Amino acid sequence: MTDATNNTRILLAARPHGEPTSEHFTVESVPVPEPADGEVLLRTIYLSLDPYMRGRMSAAKSYAAPVELGAVMEGGTVAEVVESRDPGLTPGDIVLAYTGWQAYGVAPARHVRKLDPAQAPISTALGVLGMPGFTAYAGLLEIGRPQPGETVVVAAAAGPVGSAVGQIARIKGARAVGIAGGPDKVAWLEELGFDVALDHRSPTFADDLEAAVPDGIDVYFENVGGHVWDAVLPRLNTYARVPVCGLVAHYNDTELPPGPDRSSRLMSTILTKSLTVRGFIQTEFVKTHHASFQSEAAGWLSDGSLRHREDVVDGLEQAPEAFAGLLKGKSFGKLLVRVGEDPTS
Amino acid sequence: MTDATNNTRILLAARPHGEPTSEHFTVESVPVPEPADGEVLLRTIYLSLDPYMRGRMSAAKSYAAPVELGAVMEGGTVAEVVESRDPGLTPGDIVLAYTGWQAYGVAPARHVRKLDPAQAPISTALGVLGMPGFTAYAGLLEIGRPQPGETVVVAAAAGPVGSAVGQIARIKGARAVGIAGGPDKVAWLEELGFDVALDHRSPTFADDLEAAVPDGIDVYFENVGGHVWDAVLPRLNTYARVPVCGLVAHYNDTELPPGPDRSSRLMSTILTKSLTVRGFIQTEFVKTHHASFQSEAAGWLSDGSLRHREDVVDGLEQAPEAFAGLLKGKSFGKLLVRVGEDPTS
Repeated sequence: MTDATNNTRILLAARPHGEPTSEHFTVESVPVPEPADGEVLLRTIYLSLDPYMRGRMSAAKSYAAPVELGAVMEGGTVAEVVESRDPGLTPGDIVLAYTGWQAYGVAPARHVRKLDPAQAPISTALGVLGMPGFTAYAGLLEIGRPQPGETVVVAAAAGPVGSAVGQIARIKGARAVGIAGGPDKVAWLEELGFDVALDHRSPTFADDLEAAVPDGIDVYFENVGGHVWDAVLPRLNTYARVPVCGLVAHYNDTELPPGPDRSSRLMSTILTKSLTVRGFIQTEFVKTHHASFQSEAAGWLSDGSLRHREDVVDGLEQAPEAFAGLLKGKSFGKLLVRVGEDPTS
Repeated sequence: MTDATNNTRILLAARPHGEPTSEHFTVESVPVPEPADGEVLLRTIYLSLDPYMRGRMSAAKSYAAPVELGAVMEGGTVAEVVESRDPGLTPGDIVLAYTGWQAYGVAPARHVRKLDPAQAPISTALGVLGMPGFTAYAGLLEIGRPQPGETVVVAAAAGPVGSAVGQIARIKGARAVGIAGGPDKVAWLEELGFDVALDHRSPTFADDLEAAVPDGIDVYFENVGGHVWDAVLPRLNTYARVPVCGLVAHYNDTELPPGPDRSSRLMSTILTKSLTVRGFIQTEFVKTHHASFQSEAAGWLSDGSLRHREDVVDGLEQAPEAFAGLLKGKSFGKLLVRVGEDPTS
């Protein structure tokens, strides 16, 4: 357990050009902060590592402001209330927060959500019952709109978003084809009930995909880009929907790849196949879909129709390396850093 | 007027690789065909020339089958019934048909629609009140969904689709920015009431566009591709909608342009701006939107809020050259070939 008078935290020290490495971060130890009125002091138990964080490390304009240089890296956390200056929370409460890459954080009580450890393991609030699960749910159902019997293909299918996409597609009566990297992940997808699971590292990947989608692809949930997208695009059906959730194969790109320039061909394919290609961030759908997600996903989790997997790394200092590995497909399931003791386990 | 015993018709003789020229077509004279039971013999008055025809000349799979080599080129027509073997039509009736690039054609009576020359000039059934007008209406309202005060940008704005898009956007309370080639077209767009009209041939085009959209672009109705799209993309707002109706700048492409390959950057922009990029063909929306289009557009036409322009070329033999010019932006307004006498004018 972390020393209660010192707070270890990881700052963004430099903006990575390409792959983030330890030199882009500073680990420092500072006094534990003091909560003000209406705030709580939180001890981090789990820190979530997610691909979107790569965007926050860049200065480029995106859907959210970049993390400032010298600031604590942002991130979702599950934490224990240590001290409360708000009547709604009590020391010992477990909450979902956004206190970032640090052992202790202070947050306004209204910015955290109390969790019930009796209902589900607290770490699921960062995964299958949290942002990644909701991303899968909203993007698949609102943009992908799979119909019974249609074929849904999802990339990064062994990740927390992709594994939920495939399972929810099956719950809704569609065929699910999952694409992941390596035989262990493929085996797990088969265990989860994906109709077909494919290894994108196989030299026969494009042919394997062709064989896996005899009726073409109606929904492609895009997490990846790169050669997976290249194989999917020619197999999309007329009126196919493509929720674009992430492009992890490109997050470390430092320059555009060499030509020819295929962007006009992409637009032509969108035209001739009447495709819907739709980028999204889950926050767009919170108001309209989060309540139904919470009740449906909790039910699926308890009846076993929605399963998940966690990849837990111990120690906050491991976060930079674990994050770099995430972008290279090294993690398997939801990547979490155990920053401090989990009192519920 | 065409000799009533001979039918002049234009066949697709070869598939163009690049720009279509006279060598890709054969003009021949054959006997006028005979209608069977339930059919009508039609004398073509106007033949519509539209960019989609370039796709029909290619063997590549698209949303419709290609025209066979040696077959009459397809196309929408306004024609006069010469002989009827169906009780619903009488010689002298004016109909909308799809008899293609020929002076006479036979069609099942159920495949044609009788026009009322008293309601609107018959040529408008091929333009503002026909397929191009409906394409604008359905694509703008169903995919673009402009809200009052939003900025709609449309390319090929002096064409029959683009001019309707901009005017309907204004009718619905949006700002309309039209992009066209050359000062005459720009002047006409201003006359139509576009808030801003821009010449994409100007060396300052990208800066002109920047100045024309101080609040960014909420809807971009894509007819063109090429350097117009390149200028639009960085100015699209979060949640912008891009109905992709045509890509006329690319229809004669024979190979992909040189690199770098910008396709991954296009996908990244779709992701980070939560864009909706949606290809479509108007036929998709006929069942759901055609009735409302017919009543709304007829009203707008008669009250002067929807104006249009026709570019009429005389003589069927001119069709190949006029069509090649259409792909190069030479026509101004709806391009029609007057194949035979218009008895209503």
